[in-house]
Amino acid sequence: MAWRFALMTDPAASDDDRTDFSTTFTEVDPSAPALTVGELSTQRGDGIFESIGVVDGHAQEVEAHLERLAHSAHLCDLPEPHIAQWREAIARAAARCGDGEAVIKLILSRGVEHGPAPTAWVTAATAGDFTAARTHGIRVVTLDRGYDIGVPARAPWLLLGAKTLSYAVNMAAIREAKRRGADDAVFVSSDGFVLEAPTASLILRRGDTFVTPAPNGGILHGTTQLSLFEHLALQGFATAYETIPATDLVAADAAWLVSSVRLAAPIVAVDGQELPHDAAFTASMNAYLRSPRD
Amino acid sequence: MAWRFALMTDPAASDDDRTDFSTTFTEVDPSAPALTVGELSTQRGDGIFESIGVVDGHAQEVEAHLERLAHSAHLCDLPEPHIAQWREAIARAAARCGDGEAVIKLILSRGVEHGPAPTAWVTAATAGDFTAARTHGIRVVTLDRGYDIGVPARAPWLLLGAKTLSYAVNMAAIREAKRRGADDAVFVSSDGFVLEAPTASLILRRGDTFVTPAPNGGILHGTTQLSLFEHLALQGFATAYETIPATDLVAADAAWLVSSVRLAAPIVAVDGQELPHDAAFTASMNAYLRSPRD
Repeated sequence: MAWRFALMTDPAASDDDRTDFSTTFTEVDPSAPALTVGELSTQRGDGIFESIGVVDGHAQEVEAHLERLAHSAHLCDLPEPHIAQWREAIARAAARCGDGEAVIKLILSRGVEHGPAPTAWVTAATAGDFTAARTHGIRVVTLDRGYDIGVPARAPWLLLGAKTLSYAVNMAAIREAKRRGADDAVFVSSDGFVLEAPTASLILRRGDTFVTPAPNGGILHGTTQLSLFEHLALQGFATAYETIPATDLVAADAAWLVSSVRLAAPIVAVDGQELPHDAAFTASMNAYLRSPRD
Repeated sequence: MAWRFALMTDPAASDDDRTDFSTTFTEVDPSAPALTVGELSTQRGDGIFESIGVVDGHAQEVEAHLERLAHSAHLCDLPEPHIAQWREAIARAAARCGDGEAVIKLILSRGVEHGPAPTAWVTAATAGDFTAARTHGIRVVTLDRGYDIGVPARAPWLLLGAKTLSYAVNMAAIREAKRRGADDAVFVSSDGFVLEAPTASLILRRGDTFVTPAPNGGILHGTTQLSLFEHLALQGFATAYETIPATDLVAADAAWLVSSVRLAAPIVAVDGQELPHDAAFTASMNAYLRSPRD
């Protein structure tokens, strides 16, 4: 991964009706100090983010990411993001991505401790090479996430459904998966339903129907999953949101982890048990996901 | 809160046998940029921390904090901290705290994304004024933390017991408490046991016995609680670690939230129900906690 661009933004109020945000942007060197030690993002993981895939300079599904950023801000009591300002910052970052695949990150932090306002920035970097994951697939293990399926509804302060910067557990789950000889993890609720991966959504195929865990179970609503479901529906497939028992995963006709940058990675094994894998179908999914999407 | 000092440290390997760490320290301006946008602490809340109370230039319970830092590093698969280096960094920070109360923070981040090594720094700042909380007490609400009491033992990847930088939920719980007209929250397991506050430990008094939730329930082992239990034992009181039903909290003879900087804050109400409060006893606790402790 190589950094390409970083832009600090001075968050505009959501009712600011200007259209030129130039004076709110400051380009910074991504490898030079830009944040103070008082940043609450760094002290408390207190903020939200989005990772946007970029293919040949086109930022994918920008509006869906901006909607989710606004949703996360609402859940975390952060000021409502000024969407036009973020859209313009993304455009500037995308213009610096060049050919090939890249990732743009949006970060909205609660700001500096006892400071007056949030801190916000956008970065762009070359994406890793995910060819192997997309073509040969990934082996996953299921890991208990500790919450039962009803927790998100009764405990909104747990911020389930918000894409916060507090990802230490997500990172630990991936390390645990690798310790077990797998590539990634699928979180399972304490009462036995599949949820999501630490940085991806889960999609299962049953015949000509594609299902994904319902977002009300306390998972992120995946922008890539949403986009792929629209595409599959246009192809004539049925799609559905369900509460899915973990036993359904190994019984599926196929399964994928989908995310903005790695795109569709077919799951070829769950806890050591092999899963069917249709390489041609996955290739067609990834061809769609690599095409310009808005 | 006013910043007093910030020191970036170049983490020494745990087997480094030097005694002079001067060349590994770089003092920085706490209000100037010091961290890059690639910091995993800021992108992922991926790192650990400690907050150490300082009274009149004396850093309290340094060894207990360093032990917990090492424990958190182990749980998070971070390199073992070089204790002598951290001790020296703390001494430098404490020397800049002056009279009155201050807080020293230790932060060990996983480093810059795809970088070679962790990032580490130490800050010192004037503490807030907690006189009102210590003397008049605090009103708390109980909030479900979503995990049952058995989760930590069966799911170590949830990092329960590690003091990670991923504190977005802790901060959200405090906001929820304030929304309900209280000052702080006490987390309760999904099966009804009291755990800890978002940034403090819970102590209950029953007659001449002081009890605190057992750390194996997935809570941090509080350095202030440990120190206070030693003090109470010397005064002839009994102390115990227990799995405590939430109903015991409102039935207690008294209860406190204790932490390194706010020290002992008596709980005067739980979910709107008043709790007895012995102001003289709390004052004696805080007199002890403000005395130099090692």
